[in-house]
Amino acid sequence: MSQTESALQQVLEWGRSLTGFADEHAVEAVRGGQYILQRIQPSLRDNSARTGRDPQDETLIVAFYRELALLFWLDDCNDLGLIAPEQLAAAEQALGQGMPCALPGFEGCAVLRASMAALAYDRRDYAQLLDDTRCYCAALRAGHAQAAGAERWSYAEYLHNGIDSIGYANVFCCLSLLWGLDMAILRARPAFRQVMRLISAIGRLQNDLVGRDKDRLAGEVDNAAILLLQRYPDMPVVEFLNDELAGYARMLHRVMAEERFPTPWGPLIETMAAIRTQYYQTSTSRYRNDAARRGQRTPV
Amino acid sequence: MSQTESALQQVLEWGRSLTGFADEHAVEAVRGGQYILQRIQPSLRDNSARTGRDPQDETLIVAFYRELALLFWLDDCNDLGLIAPEQLAAAEQALGQGMPCALPGFEGCAVLRASMAALAYDRRDYAQLLDDTRCYCAALRAGHAQAAGAERWSYAEYLHNGIDSIGYANVFCCLSLLWGLDMAILRARPAFRQVMRLISAIGRLQNDLVGRDKDRLAGEVDNAAILLLQRYPDMPVVEFLNDELAGYARMLHRVMAEERFPTPWGPLIETMAAIRTQYYQTSTSRYRNDAARRGQRTPV
Repeated sequence: MSQTESALQQVLEWGRSLTGFADEHAVEAVRGGQYILQRIQPSLRDNSARTGRDPQDETLIVAFYRELALLFWLDDCNDLGLIAPEQLAAAEQALGQGMPCALPGFEGCAVLRASMAALAYDRRDYAQLLDDTRCYCAALRAGHAQAAGAERWSYAEYLHNGIDSIGYANVFCCLSLLWGLDMAILRARPAFRQVMRLISAIGRLQNDLVGRDKDRLAGEVDNAAILLLQRYPDMPVVEFLNDELAGYARMLHRVMAEERFPTPWGPLIETMAAIRTQYYQTSTSRYRNDAARRGQRTPV
Repeated sequence: MSQTESALQQVLEWGRSLTGFADEHAVEAVRGGQYILQRIQPSLRDNSARTGRDPQDETLIVAFYRELALLFWLDDCNDLGLIAPEQLAAAEQALGQGMPCALPGFEGCAVLRASMAALAYDRRDYAQLLDDTRCYCAALRAGHAQAAGAERWSYAEYLHNGIDSIGYANVFCCLSLLWGLDMAILRARPAFRQVMRLISAIGRLQNDLVGRDKDRLAGEVDNAAILLLQRYPDMPVVEFLNDELAGYARMLHRVMAEERFPTPWGPLIETMAAIRTQYYQTSTSRYRNDAARRGQRTPV
């Protein structure tokens, strides 16, 4: 069995302890996680002399994939109603506090949080991961409520929430926790926090642009393109959002060029900025409205 | 002579030491500054037991008005080319470093900076005022260059720059410096920095919406409404920007309700959020395209 297959098996096995967990969550987590880790591997190797954290360490890699799978599962729990609202509330509580889940069927939450606490290179990253998880869950809930018609958001409000609901803060924090990327120190720099906001906005817009056909067919309105088109039918929404995306990329490159962030932050941010073509667009299940998906033909 | 007339005279007198300074800069500064100070006067009075700073202190009031007049003058130096580029660069350098100006004709820069340094309740506010001034000048320059066709900005890039070029950071910092509003401490809170960004975005959009007819007639493109309409002729730009404005106001109210900022920050932020109807829309020269302005009739 290859290292990838072995890691996938371990994510799937862990996922069995989460009600509603699907194979797709594990598969997408490994696919996305592997893309990120492969791109930053040389930098992680450079860092390993200082941190003692091997980029090839299977325990660390599996923990990273599980955290990503968790993010996908939480997303679908909100959007697809995989579990009952009170179950979701209990799971969120457990994940955000690092406590056992009050309801049965979610043992994986406490297992993952305990392993993250044990693996943390810097304990402050673990505290931040809990905080980021609370933010992510709150943003998913708010996005879902807005889409259900509870509120009528402006584009800015949508994006403000979308910066949290894309979950990149969790991804970065998890990498920092596992491979010692010093996020607790970097976060004190305003420019670093700005980079976090910019790359998250980029991820949100990339995700929404790639997923708009799928979301539209699914009747999903928690998507920037769909929200804008509903509100302003004459607006050239895709052109506008692509211009926005290009603008955020220019702003990101400007601040990355001005500030010198330590290894591996340069390659890591570049990797995330390129995720549209490398990850979202190659998805056959989660993001693209692929005609061949699950053997169904969908109207074009 | 009333206190207002006396203050105006002192701003005009100081302005004589700045090449290109116009009466309008002083008049608008007193009109806007008075609006702000009147609204927060009860809170400043509550604070005065702690700070020893009287809200009616003429020296403090005149210093505030002069700083506002300086912001208007700098804005027009960029947009209307009141002075030569090398003069502007020297004046900006002096204002941002708190040094005498290298060129003659700008003695008011060093005079104002020296008085701010002497009046600072907390010395850190003076350092921040210099920093904010550098940011403001850089944003004015960038906005002017973009409008001249040097770059093609996205809406997000425009707004990112517009948050600095509206100058609200300078206004708040100046108030804090003069009346001891503890901004140096508050700035450590992420929610406070978010409030600064939100109220500045609100100010920028209000300013651009009120000023769009005037800017359009002047051929000015450094305005969100004009920039969007040029790029997307079918977009309902005013509706979009008014929705954005309402969204920023909701986000601002949410964070202001969740966080408890000390006196006078609540009334001060409310005052600034209401500035559209109280200040921009009542302007007969600076923001509105008033038919009666300077005796000219402009096409409608």
